[in-house]
Amino acid sequence: MNEEYARIDFNRRERIGMVEAVWGQHKTAEQIVAILKRFHAEGEFGLVTRVSAFKAEAISNCLANVVFHPTANCLTYGEMTKSQPSLGKVIILCGGTSDLRIAAESELALQCHGIKVELIVDVGVAGLNRLLNSLPRLKTANVLIACAGMEGSLPTVLTGLVPQPVIGVPTSVGYGVSSGGKVALEGMLSSCAPGLTVVNIDNGYGAAMAALRILKFGSPSS
Amino acid sequence: MNEEYARIDFNRRERIGMVEAVWGQHKTAEQIVAILKRFHAEGEFGLVTRVSAFKAEAISNCLANVVFHPTANCLTYGEMTKSQPSLGKVIILCGGTSDLRIAAESELALQCHGIKVELIVDVGVAGLNRLLNSLPRLKTANVLIACAGMEGSLPTVLTGLVPQPVIGVPTSVGYGVSSGGKVALEGMLSSCAPGLTVVNIDNGYGAAMAALRILKFGSPSS
Amino acid sequence: MNEEYARIDFNRRERIGMVEAVWGQHKTAEQIVAILKRFHAEGEFGLVTRVSAFKAEAISNCLANVVFHPTANCLTYGEMTKSQPSLGKVIILCGGTSDLRIAAESELALQCHGIKVELIVDVGVAGLNRLLNSLPRLKTANVLIACAGMEGSLPTVLTGLVPQPVIGVPTSVGYGVSSGGKVALEGMLSSCAPGLTVVNIDNGYGAAMAALRILKFGSPSS
Amino acid sequence: MNEEYARIDFNRRERIGMVEAVWGQHKTAEQIVAILKRFHAEGEFGLVTRVSAFKAEAISNCLANVVFHPTANCLTYGEMTKSQPSLGKVIILCGGTSDLRIAAESELALQCHGIKVELIVDVGVAGLNRLLNSLPRLKTANVLIACAGMEGSLPTVLTGLVPQPVIGVPTSVGYGVSSGGKVALEGMLSSCAPGLTVVNIDNGYGAAMAALRILKFGSPSS
Amino acid sequence: MNEEYARIDFNRRERIGMVEAVWGQHKTAEQIVAILKRFHAEGEFGLVTRVSAFKAEAISNCLANVVFHPTANCLTYGEMTKSQPSLGKVIILCGGTSDLRIAAESELALQCHGIKVELIVDVGVAGLNRLLNSLPRLKTANVLIACAGMEGSLPTVLTGLVPQPVIGVPTSVGYGVSSGGKVALEGMLSSCAPGLTVVNIDNGYGAAMAALRILKFGSPSS
Amino acid sequence: MNEEYARIDFNRRERIGMVEAVWGQHKTAEQIVAILKRFHAEGEFGLVTRVSAFKAEAISNCLANVVFHPTANCLTYGEMTKSQPSLGKVIILCGGTSDLRIAAESELALQCHGIKVELIVDVGVAGLNRLLNSLPRLKTANVLIACAGMEGSLPTVLTGLVPQPVIGVPTSVGYGVSSGGKVALEGMLSSCAPGLTVVNIDNGYGAAMAALRILKFGSPSS
Amino acid sequence: MNEEYARIDFNRRERIGMVEAVWGQHKTAEQIVAILKRFHAEGEFGLVTRVSAFKAEAISNCLANVVFHPTANCLTYGEMTKSQPSLGKVIILCGGTSDLRIAAESELALQCHGIKVELIVDVGVAGLNRLLNSLPRLKTANVLIACAGMEGSLPTVLTGLVPQPVIGVPTSVGYGVSSGGKVALEGMLSSCAPGLTVVNIDNGYGAAMAALRILKFGSPSS
Amino acid sequence: MNEEYARIDFNRRERIGMVEAVWGQHKTAEQIVAILKRFHAEGEFGLVTRVSAFKAEAISNCLANVVFHPTANCLTYGEMTKSQPSLGKVIILCGGTSDLRIAAESELALQCHGIKVELIVDVGVAGLNRLLNSLPRLKTANVLIACAGMEGSLPTVLTGLVPQPVIGVPTSVGYGVSSGGKVALEGMLSSCAPGLTVVNIDNGYGAAMAALRILKFGSPSS
Repeated sequence: MNEEYARIDFNRRERIGMVEAVWGQHKTAEQIVAILKRFHAEGEFGLVTRVSAFKAEAISNCLANVVFHPTANCLTYGEMTKSQPSLGKVIILCGGTSDLRIAAESELALQCHGIKVELIVDVGVAGLNRLLNSLPRLKTANVLIACAGMEGSLPTVLTGLVPQPVIGVPTSVGYGVSSGGKVALEGMLSSCAPGLTVVNIDNGYGAAMAALRILKFGSPSS
Repeated sequence: MNEEYARIDFNRRERIGMVEAVWGQHKTAEQIVAILKRFHAEGEFGLVTRVSAFKAEAISNCLANVVFHPTANCLTYGEMTKSQPSLGKVIILCGGTSDLRIAAESELALQCHGIKVELIVDVGVAGLNRLLNSLPRLKTANVLIACAGMEGSLPTVLTGLVPQPVIGVPTSVGYGVSSGGKVALEGMLSSCAPGLTVVNIDNGYGAAMAALRILKFGSPSS
Repeated sequence: MNEEYARIDFNRRERIGMVEAVWGQHKTAEQIVAILKRFHAEGEFGLVTRVSAFKAEAISNCLANVVFHPTANCLTYGEMTKSQPSLGKVIILCGGTSDLRIAAESELALQCHGIKVELIVDVGVAGLNRLLNSLPRLKTANVLIACAGMEGSLPTVLTGLVPQPVIGVPTSVGYGVSSGGKVALEGMLSSCAPGLTVVNIDNGYGAAMAALRILKFGSPSS
Repeated sequence: MNEEYARIDFNRRERIGMVEAVWGQHKTAEQIVAILKRFHAEGEFGLVTRVSAFKAEAISNCLANVVFHPTANCLTYGEMTKSQPSLGKVIILCGGTSDLRIAAESELALQCHGIKVELIVDVGVAGLNRLLNSLPRLKTANVLIACAGMEGSLPTVLTGLVPQPVIGVPTSVGYGVSSGGKVALEGMLSSCAPGLTVVNIDNGYGAAMAALRILKFGSPSS
Repeated sequence: MNEEYARIDFNRRERIGMVEAVWGQHKTAEQIVAILKRFHAEGEFGLVTRVSAFKAEAISNCLANVVFHPTANCLTYGEMTKSQPSLGKVIILCGGTSDLRIAAESELALQCHGIKVELIVDVGVAGLNRLLNSLPRLKTANVLIACAGMEGSLPTVLTGLVPQPVIGVPTSVGYGVSSGGKVALEGMLSSCAPGLTVVNIDNGYGAAMAALRILKFGSPSS
Repeated sequence: MNEEYARIDFNRRERIGMVEAVWGQHKTAEQIVAILKRFHAEGEFGLVTRVSAFKAEAISNCLANVVFHPTANCLTYGEMTKSQPSLGKVIILCGGTSDLRIAAESELALQCHGIKVELIVDVGVAGLNRLLNSLPRLKTANVLIACAGMEGSLPTVLTGLVPQPVIGVPTSVGYGVSSGGKVALEGMLSSCAPGLTVVNIDNGYGAAMAALRILKFGSPSS
Repeated sequence: MNEEYARIDFNRRERIGMVEAVWGQHKTAEQIVAILKRFHAEGEFGLVTRVSAFKAEAISNCLANVVFHPTANCLTYGEMTKSQPSLGKVIILCGGTSDLRIAAESELALQCHGIKVELIVDVGVAGLNRLLNSLPRLKTANVLIACAGMEGSLPTVLTGLVPQPVIGVPTSVGYGVSSGGKVALEGMLSSCAPGLTVVNIDNGYGAAMAALRILKFGSPSS
Repeated sequence: MNEEYARIDFNRRERIGMVEAVWGQHKTAEQIVAILKRFHAEGEFGLVTRVSAFKAEAISNCLANVVFHPTANCLTYGEMTKSQPSLGKVIILCGGTSDLRIAAESELALQCHGIKVELIVDVGVAGLNRLLNSLPRLKTANVLIACAGMEGSLPTVLTGLVPQPVIGVPTSVGYGVSSGGKVALEGMLSSCAPGLTVVNIDNGYGAAMAALRILKFGSPSS
């Protein structure tokens, strides 16, 4: 078979200012190693998302200089960009401990680009006072990312309280009708709070890249 | 054709303590008149839900003693039960003006049974302060009914704030993914707030009957 | 990563009268142990739902004073509230042996709050006589919880027969179109019996909390 | 355009013993008239289903010998077969007045083939006593057809009570989740009562033809 | 917990003429053994459907007189009814080898009631000649059961060719959009062939019970 | 508002060999007139699909040289290409009179490109002999387009009988579960007949363009 | 009935910097007039979305100072904010003329807040050169809003080409499977282009408010 | 049980010019061996699709002359047809490495029929330049097969750029809303590019057979 492995799009960094990211879920450890070796040849830093601990170990056995981030289920390869506080700050909120892995994927993807990030866990709307108590801290962010499963109402309530851009990340945390995350997704899309935008279920990486676009290009002075 | 019109279940009042209700949506004016005439013969009070103004007028032209309630799209026939404050009070909340017709159906169905009701409109979660300001008043109710369309998060937030029984009524108010009310419904079912129960989309009457069951039979002393 | 584990909402007991409950399904044994240790520090009783036997053993190995309830797939931690018969009684019905684990979750959640509960198994509608024979016993309850999978018609038939509040719990027992419980759920929501309310698929805990709200706050004298 | 109108399958009567039926919903009055004229030329009796009163009038203006059946929304053309009581009897039940039009379509389709039919209206499961009171009469039928909308539990309860073949016809009567009839359909398919079979939503004609097949060919002596 | 295991409905045999059947899928080996022991006490024959080879072995280890039927994934307990050819004959067709397990469940369930059955495999519509060649043999049956996955068009084509009752059984054989069997099910329900009835996906047992009802009660002389 | 009306892609004819087509459904008569005037300026022939008779009249009142094709609900503007029999022939089949409008859209779209087309109506699979009788005629075509609603099994049966390319067009003809055409679509996609391809529901135009691509570019000698 | 019309959230402007917007779709002309009168009393500017020409006229007859924007189906009331070019620029793209009404709603909502907007129509991906030709112009924007119906791939292709924030607005333009806009929505959510965010179907207003949040608060210097 | 294993349709090769193919997914190794032995007896070449490496090994242990193709998850049995370049060429494109297994199934199925095939990997639309760079090579093909998961926009963009027949194969590569491949499928069906046809999700074999039909019979000279 004359297949040609992943033609890597190395000028994406120039075109849209992002480090190379590889979606690891449907790729074998072997395929990921082959891709990272080409990164190495090009002197590129790489981020691999959706890698199980098991697959990560198989990759680490073949390649030095690979770091596994267990909460985020991600691998990084090479040296990370230094933090650039002048680009602004992102705060990531999540409804519960169960949403942590998605929030952590977002956090890591931003850190790979030198963006300052803070994480606030367990500010679900069933105990509203915890969210209300966080309001002063939320004022310090330029962009907010809100991850929630179940009925996914955290981003709706949040968007009604703050003036900044809010990106909702529905998570697949739930059961019964909310199993798989579609209820959280559609709840966020239906939100009565004006200006909330949304990414795919569990797409922590995508929310981070949207925040990056905002911080770097989203205003005349940026 | 040997059809036999609606065999009315006149001992439901005895069995489960409810006045006779007729679901008007799929019935012709002629069929409704025929049914109400039998109510008259039995000396029964009747409530007809989901009647358009147009159909209501056709019925009124055939029968005296019929009252149309335009916001609720309901007809009542006969004399209503007197208010019985000792049974307790229900407060009905709704997220927006667009949900009024469902809230009004609930209100009327409870008034038909002599239950005291109050209505609080426009306490949607996008402007949380309005809901928080209503908390003292909410303490005076035995049962709360919360109607909401769009993403339907009002009942979730409310159930996190109060200790009483809360019945969520998803409404068909929405567009795009929330069109038809399924997102509101599934959001309420997925709610992370413990103890919220739900009825079918736009089922204001059903929520009222659930509240009635609670007030009359739901505790050892009731 | 600066994550902050589950901020426990210890004043929920005061606000809405419920013991602390932790949803165990998406949490690791390690995370649950950490949470229960804080319960211990606060002198709180805890209920953990959706815990497999395997995970339960891992937790028990780390913590004394933990009891596993295998039919309900729940853990309790600490000493349970004494039974308070004055609060009333709940009867839980289920359509078949396959629904037992959901009924048992409901039963345990109520017992944790001192509520008296009885369980009636295998009163499915395909053999109607068994349900009809139970009617005298059903009269002794203040609230009824009816669990059913497949086509889920038990709560509909039941609500037509009794005057008390009925909470329907659709279960994920089924196959083909009824696989996952959505048919049972939507059947209950569509019920022609007035006043039935519903919770999410397999949400035995939620039904119990709804019953608790009714018993404690649902009538003027409660 | 070289289109060739409906090639009528005139040997269907021989092959499977049914009169010619035309599904009128998506055809114009003009197309239906053209088809019935060929029936006339062949000396065939014809049944046209799903015809509005308006379309029926347009057809009657062009053709004598056409009879409109308003409850069933059907047209018949030509002289009906005489009743053949030796073929057995079908009883059609329906949950409410709103389901009458479907029950009537079934009734007419059977009468066109000389089958004896009885109709029992308003034996919905929310008032179970009405169904239980009909049991002796149900014993006289060879096949039962049960039409129901909403949650559609009538055929399930019925199939648990009688030994004959039961054909469930879900109807599009409902609102919210039950709007369009899919909940009734899937409820019947999920039924825990053994031996219930089902046809498409509102397919009264199809249920009648299934009953006809049973009566004429379904046993060694038939 | 005061649970009461499966109240067996022993008078079903009298009421609707069926042997006791237990749905094994959601029950443990231990629960099934307990049920079969009561069958033994009552002198009843039993059929257990949806039992894996693994579970069957566990049950056989506890109980003598149990027979496992591997293609059908069923257990029988006790001595089967003798064949009663006077009741008529059922022919079961299936589209491919992959549908065999469902066809075999139907076959066994009929044999348990003494009904004569024949099985015809691999008469899918993609090679129509195989079905057309079977037509003379099909004439000898009183009822036909047609199992098909994928697009499920076998029952439609068959019903257009024969005059007997046809029961379609959609199977979960498929992939992509047809994965799980819903396309086959809805295709059968939408069939343009008059008189086809349908049961739930993979419900071979249900189709058999429907055939039994037809053979025993479906005509005046039966 | 600085909107710029439909930038017409006039080099599409060169790039992919198709005449200009405008999808008329969501455009006003006024917008269509403006577009056709630019066609006129460029000397282009134009095809407008999905135009009601009412809208067609409004357009004809503004522009000479417009022809309305009522069965196809299409407009053509300018002089049609002459028939080019050397390109081969397409046969379009449809299951019933109700599918004619879609078949006619396909036919017209091919005629606009000079392709020879034949139409065979009412060869639905419920009367298989009609399809089998057409087999000799089908041999004369290079490409077959098969339109079907309801359960949509015509293309499956056809693809099992002939060796040519077959394009299935599901139509929105149906009711109950088949309403809207999704069952026909998914049935065709699930087809067990190898090599059937499919287009969107009611997309007669798309099927025609696929046939055009095949005839003009689909073989080394074409 | 003690209903209280829309409690207007007049401090939203302070809290989140937005003018008052009213969703007109489910409100009567009379209700909208009542709300706008209160705006007048408070000296507020108002934007009413989803108003038909017919309803707009009824409102205009009651209130002076109301302007109807027919392409956008919106009303404005009062004097609009002056353009503030220092806030940056938004470019709105759409796939076809049919998407104009949504693009126009976005455009107007931004103009109400003084934001500079440009509109580029008919850059659908089926004629890629038109989009590629627009690239230099796209560089001048801070935020891009891309509206598309059908398969909705415009935002995906666009996001792969530019570094700025892109907000996808799926529109309800389509037919068959794409009817209603869900395919466009889910296509955008599934996009392989990193950093695209999405709003509800047809939610031009929401996309505008998201762009406003980005321009005003989305970077440290904004 | 009198089951008759897969009646193989050996005259399919004559009728529609295809080698025998067996869908291996739902068959046991034992069943596949039995089928291949009959192929051997008839001197037929065989292709078995959807075979895991594990099942392939079990089959190889029983039969010589079996070749496993691991990327395609297929087995071939017997000697393959020689390449026949005069029939034309197919190019298969795919969006990413994750889609390779489907592209490889298509490639192998064509090679089994002697068709020349080329494979182009990683031309996803998020990096459009890679696709644009391939245009000259694409000109050399008679038929194009485009496999894509996620939002599936590759076939849409491709069909807008080339004049040949394009067959879209949605793949089940995705997560969240795109999990399972339905978004890719429906996106392709909704495509605004005229003439794209589609097969079932992951149906690489079906796309190959459609291409074969086109190459062999799709034009007057073929």
